[in-house]
Amino acid sequence: MRIAELSRRSGVPVPTIKYYVREGLLAPGELTSPNQAHYGEAHLRRLKLIRALVEVGDLSIAATRDVLASIDSPGKTLHETLGKAQYAVTPRLQGDVDEESWAVASRQVEELVRRRGWQVTATSPAWLLLTQVLATLHSLGQDDLAGLLDRYADAAEELAEAEVRCVLSRPDVESILEGVVIGTTLGDTILAATRRLAQANVSARETPKAARARAASRHGKRVRAG
Amino acid sequence: MRIAELSRRSGVPVPTIKYYVREGLLAPGELTSPNQAHYGEAHLRRLKLIRALVEVGDLSIAATRDVLASIDSPGKTLHETLGKAQYAVTPRLQGDVDEESWAVASRQVEELVRRRGWQVTATSPAWLLLTQVLATLHSLGQDDLAGLLDRYADAAEELAEAEVRCVLSRPDVESILEGVVIGTTLGDTILAATRRLAQANVSARETPKAARARAASRHGKRVRAG
Repeated sequence: MRIAELSRRSGVPVPTIKYYVREGLLAPGELTSPNQAHYGEAHLRRLKLIRALVEVGDLSIAATRDVLASIDSPGKTLHETLGKAQYAVTPRLQGDVDEESWAVASRQVEELVRRRGWQVTATSPAWLLLTQVLATLHSLGQDDLAGLLDRYADAAEELAEAEVRCVLSRPDVESILEGVVIGTTLGDTILAATRRLAQANVSARETPKAARARAASRHGKRVRAG
Repeated sequence: MRIAELSRRSGVPVPTIKYYVREGLLAPGELTSPNQAHYGEAHLRRLKLIRALVEVGDLSIAATRDVLASIDSPGKTLHETLGKAQYAVTPRLQGDVDEESWAVASRQVEELVRRRGWQVTATSPAWLLLTQVLATLHSLGQDDLAGLLDRYADAAEELAEAEVRCVLSRPDVESILEGVVIGTTLGDTILAATRRLAQANVSARETPKAARARAASRHGKRVRAG
């Protein structure tokens, strides 16, 4: 296909495609005349993956090149390549926490991973992220919320089974990686949104009970005090 | 207590406490001499909530004032006040999607809410956020991932039950709201992190199988072609 059709089918504007070629993210088309190039289905698959990394994953051109290099290097297993893509779209938190909170959180994450039998490495950005957020909860004195950690892990495990199986059933490495990047990134937002809707629903049912219990207890205190 | 102790117990620096008083977020202490004020436990509770809204929820001073006004207005139910706090810490997505994707996503969200029997309003930012992210998935041609919507909703429902019950068991409105803000915001990150760890674990188990199946299918094709 010509570049105009590649643009139409991928949803990526022609100047952007040319930019990706100049940056070495996308292989040049095959020249069929001095100023016309031919692109194939492999270009289209790669271009959709690049768009997912850059636009949805919000990756820099350098980070995108890094993930793409991992597909093209023959020594890498599929698991390593997926890990590379997932690492690239894992947020890094900023901000310091005190040493004691960090120590508590580190132990919580180690114990969680051991309890769950998860085959994961302590150097992964998700491990660091979980340690940071649990340390923040501890430093804010929210240990009751930190106590829900296994409920989060239950939810995460069930979802991960469905998500990984879904993307692994795709036909080629590019579309699997595209699914990893888009599913990981937009999945965060789907979860954030559905969780808030579900919370609002539980709150509609539970807060009137809580408010009545609170009022009864206040009334009881007044009666006892009077 | 004096302002120094209020600062130590809340973790908020003295100049920041004075700033919150000037901005009308925190009531002034009771003057015990011309330049000394006395603060009580109610100040401490309110200050911790302000810190949660400003530092964890990343809210502006105006948005914080708005949430606080909702606690202090007698006509509001607890459910409305919690909703106000949750609305304030729900991200707004930017970017346009095409009309067809928007129509598909709107129907998906309406049907999800009906199927689940969720008592939620279509004007909530979480409803809008879910519509936006599903429209983005559709426009990117990722309908297999959108097909996992009920798995996300399952996970969200289970979590929401535990989370709402956890914060509602707190003793006063300020610490309930503090829990809503911190739990909603940091909970997003706990989920993002545990989900990535769980995905890496499933990938470690499933990708070798997928890679073998793929290799066998390529080998089969070569044999048939040869």
